[in-house]
Amino acid sequence: MFELIKAARKRIQGYANRTPIMTSRTLNELVGAEVFLKCENFQRVGAFKFRGAFNAISQLTDEQRSRGIITYSSGNHAQAVALVGRLLGVRTKVVMPTDAPLTKRKATEGYGATVIDYDPEETEREEMAKVLKSEHGYTLIPPYDHRDIIAGQGTAALEVFEELKTLDMMLVPCGGGGLLSGSAIACKGMEPACRIVGIEPELADDATRSFHTKTLHSVKNPSTIADGTRTPSLGKLTFPLVLQYVDAMKTVSEAAIVKAVQFLFYRMKLVVEPSGALGLAALLSGAVPAAGRVGVIVSGGNIDGATLWSILNTGSEKESA
Amino acid sequence: MFELIKAARKRIQGYANRTPIMTSRTLNELVGAEVFLKCENFQRVGAFKFRGAFNAISQLTDEQRSRGIITYSSGNHAQAVALVGRLLGVRTKVVMPTDAPLTKRKATEGYGATVIDYDPEETEREEMAKVLKSEHGYTLIPPYDHRDIIAGQGTAALEVFEELKTLDMMLVPCGGGGLLSGSAIACKGMEPACRIVGIEPELADDATRSFHTKTLHSVKNPSTIADGTRTPSLGKLTFPLVLQYVDAMKTVSEAAIVKAVQFLFYRMKLVVEPSGALGLAALLSGAVPAAGRVGVIVSGGNIDGATLWSILNTGSEKESA
Repeated sequence: MFELIKAARKRIQGYANRTPIMTSRTLNELVGAEVFLKCENFQRVGAFKFRGAFNAISQLTDEQRSRGIITYSSGNHAQAVALVGRLLGVRTKVVMPTDAPLTKRKATEGYGATVIDYDPEETEREEMAKVLKSEHGYTLIPPYDHRDIIAGQGTAALEVFEELKTLDMMLVPCGGGGLLSGSAIACKGMEPACRIVGIEPELADDATRSFHTKTLHSVKNPSTIADGTRTPSLGKLTFPLVLQYVDAMKTVSEAAIVKAVQFLFYRMKLVVEPSGALGLAALLSGAVPAAGRVGVIVSGGNIDGATLWSILNTGSEKESA
Repeated sequence: MFELIKAARKRIQGYANRTPIMTSRTLNELVGAEVFLKCENFQRVGAFKFRGAFNAISQLTDEQRSRGIITYSSGNHAQAVALVGRLLGVRTKVVMPTDAPLTKRKATEGYGATVIDYDPEETEREEMAKVLKSEHGYTLIPPYDHRDIIAGQGTAALEVFEELKTLDMMLVPCGGGGLLSGSAIACKGMEPACRIVGIEPELADDATRSFHTKTLHSVKNPSTIADGTRTPSLGKLTFPLVLQYVDAMKTVSEAAIVKAVQFLFYRMKLVVEPSGALGLAALLSGAVPAAGRVGVIVSGGNIDGATLWSILNTGSEKESA
């Protein structure tokens, strides 16, 4: 798989942004380590998802491209697939629940995709996508459980190691496990001694339980603010990869996520969505003790103003900021 | 003066951040030019003000340092002087109006400065600072009208030219004119053909009027959201420098500033205060026609959550983002 990540790295060059790594003296003093934030909130469509989508879709045959692609997502993956479809001239359908936020639907349509509604009370989105796929011959680009998606997501960590050379630990948010398993493979390929830790919200701790019990656990519509991690479980491909390459899984509270988003906003002037702040939340809350050189994947920055304001308006940081 | 900026550049090295230059494909397509944002929101204390404060205070004699320093400001300059005072072990007093926001007072005190209150209805802050200066022997570090402050502020533009080599135009926010005159001197020293344009809010257009009439105009407590530009007028030093080195002055509406802050938040994931968004506001609104390679100084990112939310909640961008 490491070779696939290196190949993906070449494939996305010139299309994906090589995102900057940001640091903060205040942060380093607070946690007692050197922390490096890989800012995928500055990636195209505002999240790492562009990497996997481009890597997967750019490898389709002319025949597949002419038939079009389909995916299911109401989040960053939908926008990534829609943008890559536009860039590569491939017609794109996105299966989205009727209750998806209007802003996400509009953003996806804004990139030129056709949104197909389904009623989440009545239909499973994967089923819906599969029916359409077999009816129309679309190629399905799933959000995480796909070899080329995983390889693409691993390129962010690869860039971190290319730039920083050595790291003692890397923290990666975990939803469906595409970013985490890709990052872990890149990490062990570049620097086997670097410890790789996946971070989940306590409220959506399915991957942590799966990791510890070596049996796949799932959650259903967890109420975490980290909406990127609300996926029900790791996938058929990502679960074994996480077991093989990841050193530890840790969870963080909702309060810790709130504080991390506040810190990123007030101290670092970065717009980061709650899922993207999981790694920093683990460091700031002490869920993961920091030491040495620590890389953190900040996975995305797609947050609407009202949600950010409700986070900034929570707790005590707002008064001291 | 250009030599002073180059000397300041060496002096601040290792203390000030070399801030990144950010770009956006979406932005370039929108305005039809290559735009480079020099992100001083990522500077220490969240604004370019650290540069001038460090350059000025680090040049004080041991005698001056032991007596302490004083300044007047309720904004970013106060925090910059307070932090530099702490870094260099110099006691710092900041004269602040009794009605200054609690967050700004706390941030200034957080860096170790002593805040001295004055009633803005009864006293002029400059007068207050001068009295304390002569009573106690403090050295006054004014917010903009000071050779070493201007030279320090010019280092941001110097870094832009070092990194990008050629630019056709550079846009710089204008309050008291310290950043603008420093940037203009750096620009003409590095690349005389580059056009330098100062940007003000329409509601605080004193420098624009002064520039066009060659007579110093002032404003009193203008109601612009760009609080960093609420200074009454250019200074004794900055006014002639602006006349000599700046090519044009342009103003932007409050609505244009709002849209620029929204764009920076939603599309670029950058936290930028209204004053810091003036240059981008001029490009997006067409107040300054864009062409070729355009540098923009994004001067700072110190904005509280409530103010940002009121900006994000204004107009139409929020619906389409």
